[in-house]
Amino acid sequence: MRRYERIAEDIGSLIRRGVLPVGQRAPSARAISLSHGVSLGTALRAYELLVDRGFIEALPRSGYYVSSLWRATAEPIAASHPSGASRTVGAHPIVFELFDAARDAAIVPFGSPFISPDLCPLERLARCLRVRASTQMQHPNWIEDLPPGNGELREYIGTRYAHAGAAVSPDEIVLTSGGMEALYLALRAACSHGDLVAIESPAFYGCMQALEVLGLRAVEVPTHPQHGIDIGALTDIIQRKSVRACWLMPTFHNPTGALMPDANKRELARVLARHEIALIEDAAYEELYFGAHRPKPVKAYDTKGLVLHCGSFSKSLSPGYRLGWLAAGRYAQDARRIKTAVTIATCFLVQQAVALYLQRFSYERHLRVLRKTLQTRQLTMLQGVQRYLSGNCRVTRPQGGYYLWVELPEYVDAVKLYRDALASGVSVAPGPIFSVRSEFTHCIRLNCSYPWNATTESAMQTLGELVARCSKSEGVVRQTRPAAA
Amino acid sequence: MRRYERIAEDIGSLIRRGVLPVGQRAPSARAISLSHGVSLGTALRAYELLVDRGFIEALPRSGYYVSSLWRATAEPIAASHPSGASRTVGAHPIVFELFDAARDAAIVPFGSPFISPDLCPLERLARCLRVRASTQMQHPNWIEDLPPGNGELREYIGTRYAHAGAAVSPDEIVLTSGGMEALYLALRAACSHGDLVAIESPAFYGCMQALEVLGLRAVEVPTHPQHGIDIGALTDIIQRKSVRACWLMPTFHNPTGALMPDANKRELARVLARHEIALIEDAAYEELYFGAHRPKPVKAYDTKGLVLHCGSFSKSLSPGYRLGWLAAGRYAQDARRIKTAVTIATCFLVQQAVALYLQRFSYERHLRVLRKTLQTRQLTMLQGVQRYLSGNCRVTRPQGGYYLWVELPEYVDAVKLYRDALASGVSVAPGPIFSVRSEFTHCIRLNCSYPWNATTESAMQTLGELVARCSKSEGVVRQTRPAAA
Repeated sequence: MRRYERIAEDIGSLIRRGVLPVGQRAPSARAISLSHGVSLGTALRAYELLVDRGFIEALPRSGYYVSSLWRATAEPIAASHPSGASRTVGAHPIVFELFDAARDAAIVPFGSPFISPDLCPLERLARCLRVRASTQMQHPNWIEDLPPGNGELREYIGTRYAHAGAAVSPDEIVLTSGGMEALYLALRAACSHGDLVAIESPAFYGCMQALEVLGLRAVEVPTHPQHGIDIGALTDIIQRKSVRACWLMPTFHNPTGALMPDANKRELARVLARHEIALIEDAAYEELYFGAHRPKPVKAYDTKGLVLHCGSFSKSLSPGYRLGWLAAGRYAQDARRIKTAVTIATCFLVQQAVALYLQRFSYERHLRVLRKTLQTRQLTMLQGVQRYLSGNCRVTRPQGGYYLWVELPEYVDAVKLYRDALASGVSVAPGPIFSVRSEFTHCIRLNCSYPWNATTESAMQTLGELVARCSKSEGVVRQTRPAAA
Repeated sequence: MRRYERIAEDIGSLIRRGVLPVGQRAPSARAISLSHGVSLGTALRAYELLVDRGFIEALPRSGYYVSSLWRATAEPIAASHPSGASRTVGAHPIVFELFDAARDAAIVPFGSPFISPDLCPLERLARCLRVRASTQMQHPNWIEDLPPGNGELREYIGTRYAHAGAAVSPDEIVLTSGGMEALYLALRAACSHGDLVAIESPAFYGCMQALEVLGLRAVEVPTHPQHGIDIGALTDIIQRKSVRACWLMPTFHNPTGALMPDANKRELARVLARHEIALIEDAAYEELYFGAHRPKPVKAYDTKGLVLHCGSFSKSLSPGYRLGWLAAGRYAQDARRIKTAVTIATCFLVQQAVALYLQRFSYERHLRVLRKTLQTRQLTMLQGVQRYLSGNCRVTRPQGGYYLWVELPEYVDAVKLYRDALASGVSVAPGPIFSVRSEFTHCIRLNCSYPWNATTESAMQTLGELVARCSKSEGVVRQTRPAAA
């Protein structure tokens, strides 16, 4: 442990034990520097860590204050324990209602799957689109970008894979109409009707929709909201059942935000290789990491071409452009063939506009700002959760992406909460839509990518009141039950 | 029969019997007017009809000449007689090679499925895209155009249906990423894995690809290259087998160009309604009619919401924009749900740009010019076919669309011809890719939408030479066979 980490630990401990009460002004960094005999720089690093961990808050021009934010995230949510049975899958109807809610500008979009538009470089993208539209007026060349898609763009994506530690040839890449098409093509390329696919619990609802449309069965793997699936449990399932593929989101899982440790990813690749099982690796949020280094994809550990890695520009540039890709390993030819039967090709001008954006502007610089902003907004929303749902919930604090996974008291019915909140102009994504058997009945997913303001604060307050009301009415029910018995 | 029709009939008969020999100058319209005692206008209408039917050609500033074009189209190609067996379907590998060939600007694109870019209003579309991109810079509103898609555009499409005699509510319409996605979603909405689908023979290869990806079985229905499927034969199949849906292209069929007569369309709708069978109606070429009136879709006769009518802007505006739609009748909710699992949404800027185009410019005027040009180019290519493949083929003369279906002598191997032609820089679409059992081995599909020039003329000459060579070498084989026996 380094010096600043030890100092942070000490101060954190004081806060945990209530020696430094919540709301009180914390000693200044200069005071810490003097009292601990360290440089001001070391004291400031300790404070950064404390802010990150939710022990103190920095208020502009006013110094540091003791925060209670650490409480909500201190006690982690337990791993899931799905039944392990194989079953056919049906998409939850609320998924479609969420899209409708996202369309309504009057509804606070905590339940939205889309990144806040203020984080997208819309102006630059639009400029690139205009340039490419003008070029096409003179030299119509739409034919060139038929599948597998724009060569320049595939080369660029290949280079980014190299930076992430994965060797991916541009020939293996197929550009798609958004990340969802990539996932759909990957699933169809790896599986045939009736096959069994291992998925997380909770899982991205889009996964369950695609399984349903393709007539595939699912088996849920125990999943930890911080570290992702339990490799041991997966291995056990594989040994008992004929699993054809896994569909997993190892990096910043939707909805929990879980990040599988590198060692687990390596082990996962090893297990899959031993049993020749394909992995559909949903990497939609992979670029949105808060740490110093980009987490490696499982694809980086794949030696047999079994990983179909699905990426997207929807979370980093704009969801409206509908551009994603698939690095399909040994399934590349099949994926390309299936693409022809599903959409033939992806809008050529969009491919060309994004290629131009990546050539003209620094994508990396845009991503750095984006990641920093998302991290700040995550913290702000965590503070909001702490303030208004305090004592009533546990929440994940993901190291990337833009979701918080909130576990409310067991008596809260997340679907009822979703309906009541919607009636009050706030959307949340209720837990059951992330589960084959409508589990996670007391969990919700919150989108923390939007700017925090009076409206969002008031929306969070509304949520808090609705949760509190659940508690009370439930209390009444509980009291009456024994009397009726 | 009207006066000018009778005159045309008389002159046509003289040409058929060789009284007016090919290449000879035909009497002037004025001379006809005097000799038949009709107005000059009536004589000119008779000559228009004769030109249309390929009996005479108008040479600019030089009058009319007797043509032999009528010979190629005079003897119609017979209807197909598929076996009627149900089978699983596989896409022909040459389909994917054709896309690669289309990408290569050095190859004469007779085999291409894409309309010639010079016929697309690319500049106006690009201008609309630029305007919408600028709007989005100020007011990001991507969310509004989630499925079912841009409301303005769906209203516009609904209005066009009304003009075509079909009552379609905008609520029934789902915008899609090109016409192919519309067809794919329609097929999945109407069918489940293993279901039997009745298709034409020959059929659009995209139909067979989609059937393969979704694990559906096909039964081929006898189809006439001018009038489309044989309703009696279809009824017979329906009575013997459990057909879940039909996938048909009743208006300007790909590849034959067949147009089902209105009476057949009405009867088809009646038969399907009686048996509660869905129809996936591929209407990709429906707007490209040469006659005075737009042919009615089968959808216009649908009283039970069984017809899933699939349209596209790819043939009328630009294939590169990838925008289509689906009017899914009773399957509308399912289609929308399936869309979410496949691509989530269609590029919002593309939807908005096309909506703006339709609002700013006269689509109808554009289509009028487009239809006229396609009709002229069809005639020019028919003349080319007549000139270079003369005596060796029969060819359809569709009343719309941009394909010619050419039946070569039976000894011609269309796949070999395709390969030889490609080696000489000319692509053609060989018959077997349009068939479940790789039939139509001596047929090819030609794209006649491209401008006729020295390059295309020389390409047609090359085709003629390759066909002639087939004939000779085949002749040798035929001669040696009896000797060997």
